[in-house]
Amino acid sequence: MADFKVNILGCGSALPTTRHWATSQIIDLRDKLYMIDCGEGAQVQMRRMHIHFKRLTHIFISHLHGDHCFGLPGLISTLSMLGRTGDLVIHGPKEIETFLQPIINLFCKGLEFKIRFNLVDTTRHQLIMEDRSVSVYSIPLIHRIPTCGYLFVEKAKEPHIIREMTDFYQIPVSWMKDIKQGKDYVTPEGEIVPNSRLTRPADPPKRYAFCSDTICNRRIIPMIENIDLLYHEATFCENELARAKETFHSTARQAAEIARDAHVKQLIIGHFSARYNDLTTLYQEATAIFPNTILAEEGMTINVGSV
Amino acid sequence: MADFKVNILGCGSALPTTRHWATSQIIDLRDKLYMIDCGEGAQVQMRRMHIHFKRLTHIFISHLHGDHCFGLPGLISTLSMLGRTGDLVIHGPKEIETFLQPIINLFCKGLEFKIRFNLVDTTRHQLIMEDRSVSVYSIPLIHRIPTCGYLFVEKAKEPHIIREMTDFYQIPVSWMKDIKQGKDYVTPEGEIVPNSRLTRPADPPKRYAFCSDTICNRRIIPMIENIDLLYHEATFCENELARAKETFHSTARQAAEIARDAHVKQLIIGHFSARYNDLTTLYQEATAIFPNTILAEEGMTINVGSV
Repeated sequence: MADFKVNILGCGSALPTTRHWATSQIIDLRDKLYMIDCGEGAQVQMRRMHIHFKRLTHIFISHLHGDHCFGLPGLISTLSMLGRTGDLVIHGPKEIETFLQPIINLFCKGLEFKIRFNLVDTTRHQLIMEDRSVSVYSIPLIHRIPTCGYLFVEKAKEPHIIREMTDFYQIPVSWMKDIKQGKDYVTPEGEIVPNSRLTRPADPPKRYAFCSDTICNRRIIPMIENIDLLYHEATFCENELARAKETFHSTARQAAEIARDAHVKQLIIGHFSARYNDLTTLYQEATAIFPNTILAEEGMTINVGSV
Repeated sequence: MADFKVNILGCGSALPTTRHWATSQIIDLRDKLYMIDCGEGAQVQMRRMHIHFKRLTHIFISHLHGDHCFGLPGLISTLSMLGRTGDLVIHGPKEIETFLQPIINLFCKGLEFKIRFNLVDTTRHQLIMEDRSVSVYSIPLIHRIPTCGYLFVEKAKEPHIIREMTDFYQIPVSWMKDIKQGKDYVTPEGEIVPNSRLTRPADPPKRYAFCSDTICNRRIIPMIENIDLLYHEATFCENELARAKETFHSTARQAAEIARDAHVKQLIIGHFSARYNDLTTLYQEATAIFPNTILAEEGMTINVGSV
């Protein structure tokens, strides 16, 4: 079973349509959920995808446009009504606290859990959060207001024990934790069995980056080099390049060029303009440059590193 | 064609479900749209029901719980993106301005239309808005925070001209406006033809009241006496009466008793608790007391006064 999944709650852009929801994703990594952006309706999409509110621990907001954060007041109210007690950490540009704190004060009197804000410098690529499963880095993006993407780097996993070898040496269970952490085994007779004979290396840690909203920005390439999965906005087709530049968005072709040049393993494009009833052109444009591209879609779950 | 319609955008309560949206309605009256409450997702429901954003002129908010107003930031942003220039008036308890103004300042810089707040005293039953189509009155409700319902009273219509009579008297077109306004006709010979011989009375003005959220409150009865349609919340069944009282909500039976005792012509119940997958019990409970009851449902349009 994959233990690093990206759930697409919404992949539309600013204007409401009946085909897409505003931007929101849930990263499901080992035992926790991490939300990226929270457009209006995100909490309903969580219900639809049977994603449990209680496992949500961190929310990462890319920027303060409504289609990326107007679902937060409702989600926080719901968490409160569901009896949450554990802290919720909200990461984002500094205006996120300016936006939310007055709403929390007005609507959530006597909130029984703590909301902590981690205000992110959107101009720097740096570690902004770390727990035992993941490290999260900011990715500076260029949009009409301060904006950043987020890079999720899974923590190194433990190596696999080679059962035949531990059986052969009759290694007691009490040793297993040390062996998983790289120690050699010392037999009762004092013989040293090197760790490399007892374990196979763990699967390499997987990496996922979320880059939306942004004008095409090649400076992000070194930050996302070789990652397993890149979500990059593709608001427009190439024939709307002027409009993309004017509004600080990207085209599907540009997203694919970034993916190709950063040698990512897979690309998923989203943040589709309301003008596209049919996404075929966006898809064709991207796959012509970077074949391993998929179109985001509400309700979709992608296993990071499965390709 | 009915010219006084109520569109149900959402009729759920606070917790999100996949069956219902949070509270929101659109009154479609002659040439304008009036919104009542604006829960999260209301703007998407407007799209689904093909309701044009441009005709919206007034929004009435019952109270400052998130499931009745968290759709406002997104809706206002959308109106801005769609190039609105005409004023938008938001009526509601005074906290509505405290809630919205900072969000407008943060997200809608350079808004090209004016948002005017009409802060409503929720403790009084009084006229709060009037235009050439409708008069709107507040209805004091009893909930955990200041809350009011709204009574929409259609303006008197012009009487119907009896064509056979105006033809008979060969009345010039230039007289028609005066005759519609009640004047008698004076023939060139000086003969007076009484207005009652030339017109049939207009259809009586229709009335609709929205009452949600509220504990059962019989004091509203005189304010809604004999109206055409009453929307009354029915969050719970009667077997949850204790919970209804504790949370200042009503049961389906109580809503029906109010409708019966106020002699309204039709009742529509909504604001269903997330606990009810099946609304049959609520329906049976209400219709046992007041047969002409319908269950609200997303996407439903009711013609006021059609029964």
